[in-house]
Amino acid sequence: MKLTMLYSFLKTDIEEIEKELSQAIHSDTILLKDASLHLLQAGGKRIRPVFVLLSAKTGQYDIHRVKNAAVALELIHMASLVHDDVIDNADMRRGRTTIQAEWSNQVAMYTGDYMFARALNYMTVIQDSTAHRILSDAIVELCIGEIAQIQDKYRFNQSVKDYFRRIKRKTALLIAVSCQLGAVAGEATPDIQKKLYRFGYYVGMAYQITDDILDFTSTEKELGKPAGGDLLQGNITLPVFYAMENPELSSKIKKVHEDMSDEDMQHIIGEILKTDAIKRSSAISQRYLVKALEQLDALPMSKAKKSLRDIALFIGKRKY
Amino acid sequence: MKLTMLYSFLKTDIEEIEKELSQAIHSDTILLKDASLHLLQAGGKRIRPVFVLLSAKTGQYDIHRVKNAAVALELIHMASLVHDDVIDNADMRRGRTTIQAEWSNQVAMYTGDYMFARALNYMTVIQDSTAHRILSDAIVELCIGEIAQIQDKYRFNQSVKDYFRRIKRKTALLIAVSCQLGAVAGEATPDIQKKLYRFGYYVGMAYQITDDILDFTSTEKELGKPAGGDLLQGNITLPVFYAMENPELSSKIKKVHEDMSDEDMQHIIGEILKTDAIKRSSAISQRYLVKALEQLDALPMSKAKKSLRDIALFIGKRKY
Repeated sequence: MKLTMLYSFLKTDIEEIEKELSQAIHSDTILLKDASLHLLQAGGKRIRPVFVLLSAKTGQYDIHRVKNAAVALELIHMASLVHDDVIDNADMRRGRTTIQAEWSNQVAMYTGDYMFARALNYMTVIQDSTAHRILSDAIVELCIGEIAQIQDKYRFNQSVKDYFRRIKRKTALLIAVSCQLGAVAGEATPDIQKKLYRFGYYVGMAYQITDDILDFTSTEKELGKPAGGDLLQGNITLPVFYAMENPELSSKIKKVHEDMSDEDMQHIIGEILKTDAIKRSSAISQRYLVKALEQLDALPMSKAKKSLRDIALFIGKRKY
Repeated sequence: MKLTMLYSFLKTDIEEIEKELSQAIHSDTILLKDASLHLLQAGGKRIRPVFVLLSAKTGQYDIHRVKNAAVALELIHMASLVHDDVIDNADMRRGRTTIQAEWSNQVAMYTGDYMFARALNYMTVIQDSTAHRILSDAIVELCIGEIAQIQDKYRFNQSVKDYFRRIKRKTALLIAVSCQLGAVAGEATPDIQKKLYRFGYYVGMAYQITDDILDFTSTEKELGKPAGGDLLQGNITLPVFYAMENPELSSKIKKVHEDMSDEDMQHIIGEILKTDAIKRSSAISQRYLVKALEQLDALPMSKAKKSLRDIALFIGKRKY
């Protein structure tokens, strides 16, 4: 089962977004064009544009009105990925070398800036100051989340609340806003706008928790990067909090550092997998998904509603 | 003579902008707050807000309407400075250590992102899609200029046209837009908006050329960073193009590299100062200033017009 099959009726419009994304990052400056294209061609699920379009479908759908928000959101997401890779010193992303590995941190930083700036171009076409406010607030939170992530690295005495606040800012808000802006563009009722915002928020939380689980349970081949990378980088994710309830394992985890040998790291991952950390993390993710689905209850039946539901369920089960 | 004396009648409003800037970068995330404050307190001429306010004064001035654009433009400028320092690996800026030196490249990158995002917050208050378009276009060009600067580093066979295009994107456009947005906020006539845009553009070009000259002619104390830093970093500025017309000096300049000894670098700077490179660069800067002043001719006499004129003249003479 492929994710794209869950919204096949949007195929033409998603292709239009993809075309628009290519145009958006076009530049005459060779270095910039190469770096941006490199990232664009690495693909991705385009889940934010999909949520924008599906949410707009709950109201008065007009691809020309909604596409600018969809393109802007994907560009902002891509910009944040590029800047993330600078932070993580990541060599691989989605099975390809990253911009920072291929070129340099500097090029990656400005490629991110450029994509972000292009996102603004698309946003300015939208003549709705509410939409602008919603998006700019989400971007501020995204940045705070990124800085908090640096601040919290290897800080093993942080609380799980810090984790939830971080993934809210880093992931959930932008997905929430994708749904909200789609609903705004579709001129859905304020109540539906709010419900779709919440749907996106809960789905985003579940999505990130699943991501954080997969970082432990997937193979390098599936991830497109080495497993356990989050912990190695000092990012303390939900399974780690649960695993650390075991005092012996906790003291081992607290010794994790960036230059750790692969063997030692694999040993720790093995130990974490032996605990109930993954199971409990999955349960939390499922709880968020249930809340997400509840938001959809009040929406009238439609192809879009079914797709949103199916995507949420898919995210709960995804293995990559 | 201090620059601030040229617009003393704006003192209260500039103080309001300064207060707003402090609020803008406030954050509960300690790392972010510290890093942003560090930059804010390093000061700066706040020339972009000054241009916004003065340009607005040519029309219907309302500090509450115009201040959001002024704050946004200064934040964007500050964000680009922070990202610049990452690129340049700069340890000093305005006589203080840079964020990247004090913390890390990663913190500097996200502090820049955060300031940029906060700038958007301020822009969204402005209910004018033309203003949004103008600013987002300028930001895109700014990013392209930054990437071009990386691409052109140590590329000694580039043309002087590459240089002018680069400083247009890197500096002049944002100053042009400062004037333009001020005029738009003040509801000046389209003709005056255009004239102020051009004024800002020409002043910006002159300003950057002067900056590039001062990098050769000033002392480390005046600059707040070592002299000749641009060339050492591979940034080929206007004086270098002229100096390279001397074949012997040209072959020496082409051997400049980042790890060059301070002594060798000082020797090359001395050689450049012996040529007519500085004099010819100054002449170009002056030509831009004359064009800038011409734009003001058609404006009715006012305190604001006089200030704009005085600032332009000041820039032509500034020694730091």
